[in-house]
Amino acid sequence: MELHLDLRHALGTTLRARLENALRDGIRTGLLAPGTRLPTSRALCAQLGVSRGVVVDAYAQLTAEGYLSARQGAGTTVATKGGWRPPAPVRAAVQPAVRHDLSPFVPALAAFPRGAWRAALNRALRTAPDDRLGLPDSTGMPELRQALAGYLARSRGVRTAPDQIVVCNGLRQGLGLLWSALSADGTQRIAVEDPGWGGMAQTAVDAGLDVVPVPVDRHGLVVEQLAALDDVGAVAVAPAHQYPTGAVMSPARRAALVAWAHDHDALIVEDDYDAEYRYDREPIGAIQGLAPQHIAYGGSASKSLAPGLRLAWLVVPPQYVASMTALQRRRGGMPAALEQLALADLIERGELDRHLRRQRRRYRRQRDALLLALSEHLPSVEVEGEAAGLFVVLRLPAEVSEPQVLEYARAVGLALDGVGAAEPAIVVGYANLAEAAIGSAVDALAASVRAAATPD
Amino acid sequence: MELHLDLRHALGTTLRARLENALRDGIRTGLLAPGTRLPTSRALCAQLGVSRGVVVDAYAQLTAEGYLSARQGAGTTVATKGGWRPPAPVRAAVQPAVRHDLSPFVPALAAFPRGAWRAALNRALRTAPDDRLGLPDSTGMPELRQALAGYLARSRGVRTAPDQIVVCNGLRQGLGLLWSALSADGTQRIAVEDPGWGGMAQTAVDAGLDVVPVPVDRHGLVVEQLAALDDVGAVAVAPAHQYPTGAVMSPARRAALVAWAHDHDALIVEDDYDAEYRYDREPIGAIQGLAPQHIAYGGSASKSLAPGLRLAWLVVPPQYVASMTALQRRRGGMPAALEQLALADLIERGELDRHLRRQRRRYRRQRDALLLALSEHLPSVEVEGEAAGLFVVLRLPAEVSEPQVLEYARAVGLALDGVGAAEPAIVVGYANLAEAAIGSAVDALAASVRAAATPD
Repeated sequence: MELHLDLRHALGTTLRARLENALRDGIRTGLLAPGTRLPTSRALCAQLGVSRGVVVDAYAQLTAEGYLSARQGAGTTVATKGGWRPPAPVRAAVQPAVRHDLSPFVPALAAFPRGAWRAALNRALRTAPDDRLGLPDSTGMPELRQALAGYLARSRGVRTAPDQIVVCNGLRQGLGLLWSALSADGTQRIAVEDPGWGGMAQTAVDAGLDVVPVPVDRHGLVVEQLAALDDVGAVAVAPAHQYPTGAVMSPARRAALVAWAHDHDALIVEDDYDAEYRYDREPIGAIQGLAPQHIAYGGSASKSLAPGLRLAWLVVPPQYVASMTALQRRRGGMPAALEQLALADLIERGELDRHLRRQRRRYRRQRDALLLALSEHLPSVEVEGEAAGLFVVLRLPAEVSEPQVLEYARAVGLALDGVGAAEPAIVVGYANLAEAAIGSAVDALAASVRAAATPD
Repeated sequence: MELHLDLRHALGTTLRARLENALRDGIRTGLLAPGTRLPTSRALCAQLGVSRGVVVDAYAQLTAEGYLSARQGAGTTVATKGGWRPPAPVRAAVQPAVRHDLSPFVPALAAFPRGAWRAALNRALRTAPDDRLGLPDSTGMPELRQALAGYLARSRGVRTAPDQIVVCNGLRQGLGLLWSALSADGTQRIAVEDPGWGGMAQTAVDAGLDVVPVPVDRHGLVVEQLAALDDVGAVAVAPAHQYPTGAVMSPARRAALVAWAHDHDALIVEDDYDAEYRYDREPIGAIQGLAPQHIAYGGSASKSLAPGLRLAWLVVPPQYVASMTALQRRRGGMPAALEQLALADLIERGELDRHLRRQRRRYRRQRDALLLALSEHLPSVEVEGEAAGLFVVLRLPAEVSEPQVLEYARAVGLALDGVGAAEPAIVVGYANLAEAAIGSAVDALAASVRAAATPD
């Protein structure tokens, strides 16, 4: 047989490598089907005008790699069984059919400031010294920690120095470091909000800690119930805007929580995850500012910019920095260098503040539109949650099954979470949704609630 | 005092080495704080069930290294002044005064293709749909897995489909997932190369696995010794270019290793970390191509592009994918979305291949220059290691102390590693070094070797 092989376009610095790559490519793309018999080495070397040894070596290499099979008498053929199969096509385009994203964890991805981010990345690429492309500092790149220290002080009242900030690859990744540091320090039990964000408890359990749930009411975590527990070394709270209740922790509770931490020499883990968004007044500062020595403060760029950036930070009391960063180095969890430099640049130039001002206006409009649509389509359902963050809570009538609403809603293309507490309620995120789509999303949601309320 | 030391999980081939490593780790991670008083050697040898000489020797070694301090009457304590200190607060601009980077793990950062990377990032930012800015797929973004499947097949003979590739935030991060998946699957003991890259054993120990060292000679891992071990569920090797010996695994050893994996239904973890660089011939294909169902293949962009990108990948047998990616989601370890898209673009456009061709020429020149300089400045020292990768090994005369060479070399501004085996040898990386600086670096290195050879 004649084999059509284009060695000029094949990759490789030597004839043999080019021949091997041409054959591999032919087999991979299916041009050379399994079972195809190849020319003898004598025939192929004549055809290609290369020495015979080149062909013999190439056949031997590909046989060793499993692409070809060589049998006495049968010559060399493209391997069939147990050998190479073409990669299955990736179905990149096929997503679960989400028509409306009502997730409370995703900001408006369409509003990501691509231009400003590109400019920041390009500046970082243009100006960063070569050593900035090496393995990033396991505490975080100094430029970013410096920028964050200023930004967090200014916007959230966080009191810190750059060397108490540990930059991590999203908040979960950083919590894994913090919980392990606490565990190494002798902590065995921590408390979390109930209901609350699942990632908090999961990361703690994965670090070997016992997790105790403490109830949340409309003033936030019930500190009295926390105080009644023994041997709790830390408690995780989201005081600025609790997920999934939407509660903002009251001043009295904040004070009581700080007093508890003092009295028990315990740590408060403050999850400030969407605190940039408050629509009716200035946001309340972070609890961290009240008692920096007792608080590990966590924030991220996931809600203010995009989760795909994989940038978050923990501001921790000094005694935890060394063990967290040693662990970060062992785990290789440091986020990408250029992304760290780009965020530092975005903050220093005031672009993040500008973006957040635009986003607050956008989300306030979307929240208002959502409340209006809900009052029209679901007038009987109570809406809870402060004018903050990226979601509201719908309190369902007692006879409606929360799982059933979620099932119906997902079937009609809504991405949605339930509260999962005793009384049925669902969480409706309004950030990653075009304003024009809000009416249609709420219409579909109302139909799901009505369907779930109707006996089969 | 009672000292909690887990010698089973400590690295080292001898009891003394394991004890030393357990103590060093404890001090480095801060579990043993500066000033902590250690048990007397008599008490500790009784507690651990080892001979007293082992403890005395280990204390002496760590005292010499500055981790411990021993004073008459005060016993042995963790050093405070002048010895080991927890990582100092970060002073942004102040770096350790490295004049010449002889690290074997860092490619030429000055040669990072900033223009091509900027173009790739900008294309990703311009063309990625909004949902690509959300939380990345925990397996890796489909675009990158698709590009990697083709690239690895073409350049390394890796046989895989995109859905068997797990993209991770550097190889350590991915190994953490793999070891945890193996552990969840019932594996308790794995084998690593001795000497070998510390990250391999560390990540396994951190995942709760027992680690057994297996010797390496100039043909790579001694498979006979591996075969003599019981209950080893996996073995990690770097067959393309072993760190720190520079050995390339022989075909016979490769075949024996694959046969061992078949016979024991065990997994080979193939660390292909700098396999793109071979200067005297075409690189040998990955072992993965011989037995894809028994091999977890790891590679990264850290040596081909830059460690700061935080992009690596593991190609694993299908049964490990689900547990690794579930864990990746729980840990939030997915690397940045735009960086993933940019690497996919760089590969698909052939820019990575072009960059690697340029780098091979560069590193071959630098290696030649290094060998020449060594033959002039250190004619008596034997140089080992194949014409591959990013380093050579200098076999020191038996009377020269390896730690002392390293100490002197660091004092004069060389960033350098030792082999840490029985016979003194050091590893000299030549990638992240200007060609013009090689003479001066070798001159400084030669002075350090001579100083260490001279009796005080």
